[in-house]
Amino acid sequence: MKQTLSLEEIYVPVEKQLEKVPEVIFDILATPNELTHEVIRHFFSRPGKFLRIALTFFGALIEKGEKSEIEEEKLLKLGAAFEIFHSATLIHDDIIDSAFVRRNIPTVHVKWNPQVAVLVGDYLHDRALEAIFSVGNPRITAAFLKTAATVCDGEIHELAEKNNFNLKEAEYLRIIEQKTASLIACAVESGGILAGLEPEKSEALRRFGRAFGMAFQIIDDCLDFTGEEHEFGKTLGADCEAGVLTLPLIRLIELVDEPAKSEVYKIFKSGFGSGRFETLKGLLMEYGTIDYAVSKAREWTEKARLELSVFPASPARTGLERLLDYVLERNR
Amino acid sequence: MKQTLSLEEIYVPVEKQLEKVPEVIFDILATPNELTHEVIRHFFSRPGKFLRIALTFFGALIEKGEKSEIEEEKLLKLGAAFEIFHSATLIHDDIIDSAFVRRNIPTVHVKWNPQVAVLVGDYLHDRALEAIFSVGNPRITAAFLKTAATVCDGEIHELAEKNNFNLKEAEYLRIIEQKTASLIACAVESGGILAGLEPEKSEALRRFGRAFGMAFQIIDDCLDFTGEEHEFGKTLGADCEAGVLTLPLIRLIELVDEPAKSEVYKIFKSGFGSGRFETLKGLLMEYGTIDYAVSKAREWTEKARLELSVFPASPARTGLERLLDYVLERNR
Repeated sequence: MKQTLSLEEIYVPVEKQLEKVPEVIFDILATPNELTHEVIRHFFSRPGKFLRIALTFFGALIEKGEKSEIEEEKLLKLGAAFEIFHSATLIHDDIIDSAFVRRNIPTVHVKWNPQVAVLVGDYLHDRALEAIFSVGNPRITAAFLKTAATVCDGEIHELAEKNNFNLKEAEYLRIIEQKTASLIACAVESGGILAGLEPEKSEALRRFGRAFGMAFQIIDDCLDFTGEEHEFGKTLGADCEAGVLTLPLIRLIELVDEPAKSEVYKIFKSGFGSGRFETLKGLLMEYGTIDYAVSKAREWTEKARLELSVFPASPARTGLERLLDYVLERNR
Repeated sequence: MKQTLSLEEIYVPVEKQLEKVPEVIFDILATPNELTHEVIRHFFSRPGKFLRIALTFFGALIEKGEKSEIEEEKLLKLGAAFEIFHSATLIHDDIIDSAFVRRNIPTVHVKWNPQVAVLVGDYLHDRALEAIFSVGNPRITAAFLKTAATVCDGEIHELAEKNNFNLKEAEYLRIIEQKTASLIACAVESGGILAGLEPEKSEALRRFGRAFGMAFQIIDDCLDFTGEEHEFGKTLGADCEAGVLTLPLIRLIELVDEPAKSEVYKIFKSGFGSGRFETLKGLLMEYGTIDYAVSKAREWTEKARLELSVFPASPARTGLERLLDYVLERNR
């Protein structure tokens, strides 16, 4: 039986670099402004999964192995910049979604206020861009700037489709491609570009990252229904309560007959009080739509795996393959 | 008697370029996303003063005259990028300050909602950075990225000092330097860099822009008390009602005796209902603190004027000098 490894185990080939990242993040974000500093300390007191950083590092090491001659300083800055940019989008997202908890601690707009969250998000955003630029690789800067606008477009797209009970699967896929997969694709591709991979190969990494990101977001959306709140670190059902339709629910609405559809609609409109979340989960299980979504995520991980075939065996390639398994099995 | 010219008259040496800017702005901001597009159309339906664009253009033309060989496409993109970035900060600012009206039309967070305003602000921000980067001058990109973070730091600084009735003039000056003057300095300096000015001269332009920006913001803060709402295009007294102390009020608090100070404090705390705004304006007039602020602004315009002495006479230099007069006399 295949055993899924923990992130810690998967990260072994890049653990030395990963250890140095928190310091680089705090260096990039250093500010004499006390309020900003305090918010940053709060937000990063519970580090995330460092997934984008690990992907950047694996992307950079995939051809040259551990003895790569990439300047470590640049690599660390690049990884840190992706994490900071991602954090900026999370801080703004949490305002948009009115989320209370992230990584088991209060969100910035709750602990302070939405104004602080808007501005500190902007600050992180700007610092991330400055760090990317200071890496000094125009191809990476161009890819990153393009991606930043795409992520934003995806978020607006999601917002525009809020409360649209008739959202179709294709539209949902387009949204998650823009808001999630594009940044992950850019992270792993940028690692490859920094390592001097030829375009053909860095593009394979980008396609890998895109497919990886699609799977990651689909599973994330499943966890919004099936996760354990404490493990997941977020309030369950938050997407749905905020009026955001995700794949398990979209599929359910496609499958059920009219009376059941009305019931789902009622739950969707009236929120999760009085056991309605449990009723909805029951329907998702009954119609197998969580399994459907997981199977779709699995298809994306298989697409991603194929993209790695152009690379020789290496600890970095193995790391990326293991991350694909992790994404499907994760509970946080 | 010196007659202050209108912006239209001052802009004559760059009017051909300015005419093309709206199209460049819409090109940079083009998106298939309907909601984004609609918000952008709304926001730019009442163009601003295009001050940052004009400053960029004058900065670019100051040594070479009208027959400059700067690639016009790059210059237009640069000016448009500054205007878009500035617009992004306005959209976010209006959320922070809970402002209802900007340029006599509803603010984005009021017409749509704060979520849309956060994201469209982010979108404009990212597109502006991408446009700057595509101009292809690393010195400009570096200066701009540094400035973006400074602007943001200034806004957070202002937010942190909200409701601080004891804010000192020096602290206020530091805030407006960061949030306003730094971007204006960067706009005019970038024009100079694009035109290939030697660093000594582009730095003179930056210092000009910084002093210009200080004067501009001080007058803006006076207009918050003394403007005509329709001319100014914003709700009067908005800063003060939002708990933001500006120079006329800071000076008043310094000057008045304890009983009057208590009265000012009461107005500051309880808002502008029941004729309190008129009472406050009366006190500002009685103690001459609007005049004080205007005299400080005038000092900054004189500092700015001195920086121009390194440049030969030219329509662009004259344009910058006239803008200094305009800033002091403007009513919007």
